[in-house]
Amino acid sequence: MVRLPGPFTMRNGGVLPQVDVAYETWGRLSPQKDNVVLLVTGLSPGAHARSSAEDPTPGWWEEMVGPGQAIDTERFHVVCVNSLGSCHGTTGAASVDPRTGDLYRLTFPVLTIEDIATVAREAMHAIGLPRLRAIVGPSLGGMTALAYSMLFPQEVGALVSISGAARATPFAIALRSVQREAIRSDPEWRDGHYVPPGPVNGLRVARKLGLITYRSAAEWRERFGRERVKEHDGRPAAFALEFEIEAYLEMHARKFVGSFDPNCYLYLSRCMDIFDAADHGHGSVEAALATVQAADALVIGVETDFLFPLDQQEEIATLLRRAGRRVRFAPLASIQGHDSFLVDFDRFAPVIAEFLAEL
Amino acid sequence: MVRLPGPFTMRNGGVLPQVDVAYETWGRLSPQKDNVVLLVTGLSPGAHARSSAEDPTPGWWEEMVGPGQAIDTERFHVVCVNSLGSCHGTTGAASVDPRTGDLYRLTFPVLTIEDIATVAREAMHAIGLPRLRAIVGPSLGGMTALAYSMLFPQEVGALVSISGAARATPFAIALRSVQREAIRSDPEWRDGHYVPPGPVNGLRVARKLGLITYRSAAEWRERFGRERVKEHDGRPAAFALEFEIEAYLEMHARKFVGSFDPNCYLYLSRCMDIFDAADHGHGSVEAALATVQAADALVIGVETDFLFPLDQQEEIATLLRRAGRRVRFAPLASIQGHDSFLVDFDRFAPVIAEFLAEL
Repeated sequence: MVRLPGPFTMRNGGVLPQVDVAYETWGRLSPQKDNVVLLVTGLSPGAHARSSAEDPTPGWWEEMVGPGQAIDTERFHVVCVNSLGSCHGTTGAASVDPRTGDLYRLTFPVLTIEDIATVAREAMHAIGLPRLRAIVGPSLGGMTALAYSMLFPQEVGALVSISGAARATPFAIALRSVQREAIRSDPEWRDGHYVPPGPVNGLRVARKLGLITYRSAAEWRERFGRERVKEHDGRPAAFALEFEIEAYLEMHARKFVGSFDPNCYLYLSRCMDIFDAADHGHGSVEAALATVQAADALVIGVETDFLFPLDQQEEIATLLRRAGRRVRFAPLASIQGHDSFLVDFDRFAPVIAEFLAEL
Repeated sequence: MVRLPGPFTMRNGGVLPQVDVAYETWGRLSPQKDNVVLLVTGLSPGAHARSSAEDPTPGWWEEMVGPGQAIDTERFHVVCVNSLGSCHGTTGAASVDPRTGDLYRLTFPVLTIEDIATVAREAMHAIGLPRLRAIVGPSLGGMTALAYSMLFPQEVGALVSISGAARATPFAIALRSVQREAIRSDPEWRDGHYVPPGPVNGLRVARKLGLITYRSAAEWRERFGRERVKEHDGRPAAFALEFEIEAYLEMHARKFVGSFDPNCYLYLSRCMDIFDAADHGHGSVEAALATVQAADALVIGVETDFLFPLDQQEEIATLLRRAGRRVRFAPLASIQGHDSFLVDFDRFAPVIAEFLAEL
C-alpha cells in the first residue's frame, strides 16, 4: 500500500485529503526500470492478480500472469493496483474520511475513470515507476488504460485494451442503472448508511444481473440448457430455484455478497457510464484517441460480448491506427461473453503473449 | 367476459373452481363461423387489442387490427382473450378464490402456457367459436399459439407465431428470474400478501429490466446515444437520473406500477420459463411440432431480438415445414428487438396481411 499525500481534487468536483492505494507486484524490476507492466482491473477485483509468497491464494488473473505466462514475470515487473473507489485497500466510499473520522459513504465525490487513472499514475510515481512499458486493462480497466494513455501520453509505451470501450452504450448504461436501483431501493441500503450485512437483497439482484451481462446466451445454452436442479422433484414452488441457470446465479450472488461494499459498487458502476473519451478530444473520440502516444497497441474484443460489444473495440483499434499507432486488433470467438478474459485463456494468452514478446 | 364452470385442473397440479375469461371481439362473424381469428397476447396486455364503441381507448395492437388493416376486421371476426393468470379481467392470482372469499395470491396453482391455451380454447367453445381460421400470438402469446395448435390440432386452421419460442433459453430464464427476485425480495411483497401500493420498488426494477430485454442495444444507440436529461446541470448527484436512457426507463416503470399486479407478473413470467414444446413430443421438439395440423403457418422473428432470438423462430419454421405444414418464415430486420411487433408496423403489417389474405 502507498499513501498519496493530498489533497487530491476529483475531476467532477470534490477533494480527497489523502488517498491510499493498494498494489501488488511480481517479477524483478530491471536496473533501467524499463520493464514495468501496469495492470488496471475490472469493477470487482483487487490488486491480487496472482498468488505470491505473501499471499498464496490464487489471484484474479492467476493463469495469465506469472513466470513463462502471457504476462511473463520472468521478463516484466508487473504491478497491479486496486482502483480508486474500490474496497480492497484503496480509498473509496467504504474508507474513513480522515476529516471526519466517519466512513465516506455517499460523501465520497463522484468517481470518474479519469480519477482512477490519475490515482494509479500518482501511485506509480510514488513507488518510483513513472514509465510504463505497457498498461493492460480489461473491462472497466480497459477504460482506465485508455484514460491513462490519453492523460499521460509520454508515460505509456504500449496499451493493451481488453473488452473496454471509448464510451458506454446506452444499453450498458441501462443495465448498470437497474443494478444500482436494485441496491438503492433496498430499504437496508438506508441512503448509503447501512449497517452490516446491509442491502443484501439489492446486492444479490445487482450481482445476478451483472453476471448475466458478463457472460453470453450461447455459453449458457451449452452449459445449462434447460437442466433442472437436482433437488427439484417436478413440482417446485412456483418461484423457487428450479433451473440450473438459477442455481448458478444464486451461488455466485452468495459469494459476492459480503465480499464487496455496496456503496463502492455504486460508484464503480456509475463511473463506467460517465466515461467518454470524447471529453478529451473536444467532443470527438477520434481527436481524443489521437492524443495517445503509446507506440504499440493491442485491442482485444469478443464476439459474444454485448456489454462492451466488439464494434466498440474495433472503434478503438481503428482510431488508434488512424492516429499513427501500431495496432493489433484481435476479435476473438470466445463464447463466454464479456468475461472471456477471465476464462478463455486458450484464446487470450497467445494474443497477449505474442504482443508483449514483440515489444 | 365468459365464466367457465369448473373445476379446471391445472397442468402442474391444483384446481380452479371456476374461471372467468375477459375477451373482446371486432368484425362480423360469418354465417359459417369460419372467419374467426384468435389473438393471444404477450405478458402484460389485456384483451383490448383495438378500440371499439364500448371502449374507445386505443388498444395494444391498434395499428394492426381493424378495417382494412393487417388483421382485417372487414373479413375476420377477431377475438382477443386475456390470458389465464393475468389481471385484466381473467382469473389470476389477483382474483378472489370463491372457495375462500380471499384473493388467490400465492395459492394460485403453478401456471403453464398449456393452461393459458386450454382456458382460451374453453372460452372459445363457450362463446360458440370452436374453430379458428387462425390463431395469432406474439411473445408469450407465440408460445400460447403453439401450445393451442399442439393441444387442439383439429381446431386451428393456421398458426401465426411472432417472436415466440418452442422453449425458453437459459439466458431468457435468467433475465426473468432476476426480475422475479427483484419483486420477491422487496419487503413490501410480504410473500405475496402485499397491501397497496405493494412492492413498488421491486416491480419498478423488474419492469426496467424487462424493458431492457424487450428492445435492443442498436435502437437505443440511435434514439438516446449518450444524451443527458435536460435538467442535468453537469454535476448531478452520483446516482440520480442523468442519461436520457435512464429517464426513459423511469417513465415506463412509473406507468407500469399500479397497472399490473405483482403476483400475476410472477406467474406469467415463470410460465414462459417452464414451457417446453418437447413435453408434447416425448422429449423431442421435432416430434411435438409434428402434432400441429394447421395447414398454414407464418413464423416471424426479429434479428435484434435477444430474448426470443431469431434462431428459435427458425427452429419452429423448420420443424413445422418438415412436418408437412405450408410455412412462411419471415426474419425481419427491425431494430426494436423483441417488442418490434408493437412498433415496427411497416415491416410486420405487410407480412401478416399477405399471409392472412392468402388463407
